[in-house]
Amino acid sequence: MAAAAPGSELDPECRAAARPLLTDLYQATMALGYWRAGRAREVAEFELFFRRCPFGGAFTLAAGLRDCVRFLRTFRLRDADVQFLASVLPPDTEPAFFEHLRALDCSEVPLLQVSGPLLVVQLLETPLLCLVSYASLVATNAARLRLIAGPKKRLLEMGLRRAQGPDGGLTASTYSYLGGFDATSNVLAGQLRGVPVAGTLAHSFVTSFAGTEVPPDPMLAPATGEGPRVDLTVQVEVWLERVCTHLGLGVQEPHRGERAAFVAYALAFPRAFQGLLDSYCVQRSGLPNFLAVALALGTLGYRASGVRLDSGDLLQQAQEVRGVLRATAAQFQVPWLESIPIAVSNNIDEEELARLAQEDSEVDVIGIGTSLVTCPQQPSLGCVYKLVAVGGQPRMKLTEDAEKLTLPGAKAAFRLLSSDGSLLLDLLQLAEEPPPQAGRELKVWPKGAQELMTVRPARVEPLLQLWVQQGQLCEPLPSLAKSRTLVQQSLSRLSPAHRWLESPELCQVALSEQLQALVDRLKAECPA
Amino acid sequence: MAAAAPGSELDPECRAAARPLLTDLYQATMALGYWRAGRAREVAEFELFFRRCPFGGAFTLAAGLRDCVRFLRTFRLRDADVQFLASVLPPDTEPAFFEHLRALDCSEVPLLQVSGPLLVVQLLETPLLCLVSYASLVATNAARLRLIAGPKKRLLEMGLRRAQGPDGGLTASTYSYLGGFDATSNVLAGQLRGVPVAGTLAHSFVTSFAGTEVPPDPMLAPATGEGPRVDLTVQVEVWLERVCTHLGLGVQEPHRGERAAFVAYALAFPRAFQGLLDSYCVQRSGLPNFLAVALALGTLGYRASGVRLDSGDLLQQAQEVRGVLRATAAQFQVPWLESIPIAVSNNIDEEELARLAQEDSEVDVIGIGTSLVTCPQQPSLGCVYKLVAVGGQPRMKLTEDAEKLTLPGAKAAFRLLSSDGSLLLDLLQLAEEPPPQAGRELKVWPKGAQELMTVRPARVEPLLQLWVQQGQLCEPLPSLAKSRTLVQQSLSRLSPAHRWLESPELCQVALSEQLQALVDRLKAECPA
Repeated sequence: MAAAAPGSELDPECRAAARPLLTDLYQATMALGYWRAGRAREVAEFELFFRRCPFGGAFTLAAGLRDCVRFLRTFRLRDADVQFLASVLPPDTEPAFFEHLRALDCSEVPLLQVSGPLLVVQLLETPLLCLVSYASLVATNAARLRLIAGPKKRLLEMGLRRAQGPDGGLTASTYSYLGGFDATSNVLAGQLRGVPVAGTLAHSFVTSFAGTEVPPDPMLAPATGEGPRVDLTVQVEVWLERVCTHLGLGVQEPHRGERAAFVAYALAFPRAFQGLLDSYCVQRSGLPNFLAVALALGTLGYRASGVRLDSGDLLQQAQEVRGVLRATAAQFQVPWLESIPIAVSNNIDEEELARLAQEDSEVDVIGIGTSLVTCPQQPSLGCVYKLVAVGGQPRMKLTEDAEKLTLPGAKAAFRLLSSDGSLLLDLLQLAEEPPPQAGRELKVWPKGAQELMTVRPARVEPLLQLWVQQGQLCEPLPSLAKSRTLVQQSLSRLSPAHRWLESPELCQVALSEQLQALVDRLKAECPA
Repeated sequence: MAAAAPGSELDPECRAAARPLLTDLYQATMALGYWRAGRAREVAEFELFFRRCPFGGAFTLAAGLRDCVRFLRTFRLRDADVQFLASVLPPDTEPAFFEHLRALDCSEVPLLQVSGPLLVVQLLETPLLCLVSYASLVATNAARLRLIAGPKKRLLEMGLRRAQGPDGGLTASTYSYLGGFDATSNVLAGQLRGVPVAGTLAHSFVTSFAGTEVPPDPMLAPATGEGPRVDLTVQVEVWLERVCTHLGLGVQEPHRGERAAFVAYALAFPRAFQGLLDSYCVQRSGLPNFLAVALALGTLGYRASGVRLDSGDLLQQAQEVRGVLRATAAQFQVPWLESIPIAVSNNIDEEELARLAQEDSEVDVIGIGTSLVTCPQQPSLGCVYKLVAVGGQPRMKLTEDAEKLTLPGAKAAFRLLSSDGSLLLDLLQLAEEPPPQAGRELKVWPKGAQELMTVRPARVEPLLQLWVQQGQLCEPLPSLAKSRTLVQQSLSRLSPAHRWLESPELCQVALSEQLQALVDRLKAECPA
C-alpha cells in the first residue's frame, strides 16, 4: 500500500470527521452482540481488499495508509460518542457495555490485514473502507491519466469544486498527486499535505474589469531591479498597436477590460504572468492583449509564464496559438516567446487527454477536474473488509453469489518475478506457510483454474508489510513525494500489456496448495 | 434552496475542513491582483448556478445552504493560513496585503447570490461550489430514487464506505435524507445532523460464529418482564426441528454457526431481531435458522423485526421468503410472522429499484449505497459561480462556447404559476425591475426563443430569499426534517411530466424584456 505523508506539519483538525462514530450503525449493534456473546476480546483477523481493478484496467494503486494510521492511532470513543450510541441502542443495554466502549483503543491492532479483538476490529470496518476505497480509486485514476499524458506533460488537478465536499476534495488532491499529477489547485492540500499548488486567474477576474479602472500604481521596475520604473499601461498600449498591425487586427478589436485585467495581473505577478485567453475571443482579443502585455513585460526583462485556454477545441486552438506565438517571436525577435507553456482545461477526460497528448500537440499543461475526482467511468472501487479468521479458526463466507466468496484464513502475499523482472503471478498463501523461495519450483492453483501450475520464480517480493503493531508505527511512513516516486517505479515494472488501459493482460493471482485445500474443505463442510 | 439543520447540537469539528484555504490557488492570486489594482473593496455580485438538471431529469434540489452559512459565518484566515499563502505567493508581496487578508470576514456578504467586496466574494467561489454542488446532486439523486420507490417503501442510505472520504459520506447521508430517504447507516450523521440511523448485522457477524461457542447467559425473560427466564438456545433447537419438518429439510442442514450468530444477536436485541439470510444458503440455512429463532422469541412475546437479503435475485428471493413466512405463520398460528419486513441490499440502482418497487413486490425496505452516494449516472452537477456585476455595472462572459455565456446583472427570480397551481415558467429579471404581478399579463423572452411570449400568471412566487446579511442570519434556518418535508411538497407541485425521470418535460425559463435587452446590448458592445 502506498502511503501519503504530509510535507508540512500535521493538522489535527484535518481529519476531524474520521472518528469512531463515522461508521455504520450495524457495527455498533454487532459490537453489542459480540459483547453479550462473551466474544468481544476474541482475536479476529479481517482483510481489506477489492475484487476487480477499476476502469477495466489491470492495476490499482492501494492508497490511504496514512489516513488509516492516523485514524487508528487516535481511535477512542469520547463521552459524547458513547452517549449518542446509548441513545440509539436498546434502553436496557448494560452500563458495562458502554464502559467497555469507553476503554477501547486500537493498541492491539495492526494494519491492513487487521487483527485484534473481535469487537474492535469489527467497529473499524466502515471507517477503514471509507479511508482506503476512494483514495485508491482516485490515485489509480490519476495514474491512468499520467500514462495517457506521458511523462512530459504537466498535469494539474483542479477538481475541488466537483468533489464530495471538503474532505473529498482534500483526498482527491492528495491522492491525485500520489498517482502522478504534478500539482493541485487546492490550497488546503498544499498546507496540510504538502502537495505543490498552482493556479493563476479565472474568467471572473478578466470580466470584472471594464477598462475604465485606473491602477493605483502602474509603474513597474525592470526585472533586474536596475533602471527606472516604467508605466506598464503606456508600454502595453504601444505594444498593442505593433501587435495589431502584425496580426492584421484593428487596435480597437481587443477588449479593453480584458487588457486592463491582464495589466492588473501583470502588475501583481510580473514574474508569473499568465494570460487566460478565452473570456471574449481568443484570436481577436485574448491573444493580442496577452501579447501586448507579455511584450511590454519583456522589455523590462520579465518573461510571461504562459497562456491558458478553457473552452472550444483545445487542441486546435493550442496549435493556432503556438503559430501566432512563433510568428510574433520572430517578428519582434523575442525567441523565448515561442515556447511559453500553453495550458488547457475544460472537462478533459481520458479520450480528450489522449488527443491533447498526441505527438505534435502544442499543449504543455493540462488541468483536469471533474473526470479526475469523480471517476465517472467507475465512481467507486468496491473495497470490502472480510472476516477471515477468529479465535485462530479460518472463516469463509459461502454464498450463492460465487463473486462474493471470500478466501479463508490469515494470509501472506508474494509477488513472483521472472529473471527479467517481469511479473509471473501474485501468490496468496496461509500466513503460517513458509514463504516461496527464489529459484525453487512450486505448485500453485491459479485462481479459477482447474489444475495445478508449476512456477519457478527468479525473485520473490513480499507484498504485505507490518506498519502498526500494538498501536505503534513500526517504521516511519514515507513522505507523500517519496510514495509518489515509488508509485511510478512500481508502475514502470509492470509489462506494457498490464499497463494497457483497455483490455489489458490481467495480473495472475494464484493460491498455494494449502490455501486451496482449506477453501475446498470449508466448502465441503458447508451443509447448504 | 433547501436548507439542512442539525437535529442535535452543532459540532464545531464537523466541518473543520471547510475553511478559507479550502480553495483553488487562483482565488488567492486573483485576490492579490484585485488588491494591487485597488479594487479589493469594490462591491461585486456573483451568482451560483448550474446549467442543466442532472441525470437527464427536469428538476434539481438545491441543497447545502446550512453548510454555506456555517462556512461564511466562521470565515476568517488564521495566522497559519496567511503564512501558508505568503509561502506560495511572490516573495515581494506587500505585508499590507496579508494584513488585508487577516482582517477579512464575510460580514458584508449575503448568500447565495453573493454580493460583497470583490476580493472576498472571489475567495468564496471554490468553497461555496464545493459545499453546494455535491449536496444538491445527491439530494436530487435521493429524490429520484424516492420517486421510483413510491411513498411506502422504506429507503435506507448506506453509502458511507463508497463516498469520497469522511466528509463525502457525511454530506451524502445528510442530503440523501433531505431528498427523501428515511434513514442512514452513518452514525456520525445521526450524531451531528440528527438523521435517523438504522442497521443490524453484517455477514462477518454471522460467519464469526462456528456454532461451538457457549453464550455466557442464554437465559431470556419474557417480553412482558413477567414469568420465568427461559434458555433461548434450547427453545431454538426445539423450534428448529419443527421448522425443518415443516419445510422438509434435514435438521442438520441449517448452518450451526449461523444459528449461533442469530441466537447471540437475539439475546442482544430480543426486541429488534433481524435475520441476515444469505451468509450460507437462504432456503436451506438462513431462513430455517431465522424461523427457529423468531418462533422461539415469539413464544416469549417478542416479534422479530425482519429479514435481510444481500445477494442473488432480490425480488425473486423476497417473493419466495414471503411465501415461506406465510406458510410458516399459518402452520404455527403466528399471524404477525407473515408480514414482517423484508429488507434488501446489494448494488441497487434505479433500474433494479424499479423492479423491487413493482406492484406485487414483497420487498419492504431497500438499502442503497454506491449508486446513491456516487451518482454514477452523473457524478457531478457542474455548478458554476459567475461574476454578474461589479461596482454596480453588469458583467457578462462572452465566449466562443455559447453554453458558457453568462447572464449579466444582479437578478431576481420568480416562479409563475397558472390558476390550477401548475408551473408556467420561471422568470429571471434584473433586481431593480418591479416584480411580476399575479393576474397581470407580461411579455417575456423564453430562453433560446426568437420571439416574445405573453403570459398571465395566476400566482407569482419569489424564488430567492435573503438568508445572510452583514454576517447575520436573517431568520433561523428550517430544521433538516422540516426541509425534507418542504422538498416533498415542492416536488409534488411539479406536474407529472416534469417529474418523469427520463425525457421529462423541461421547466421553461424566461428572461424579462429588460434583461434580454441588457444581454443584447453587451453582446453588441463586444468587439470580438
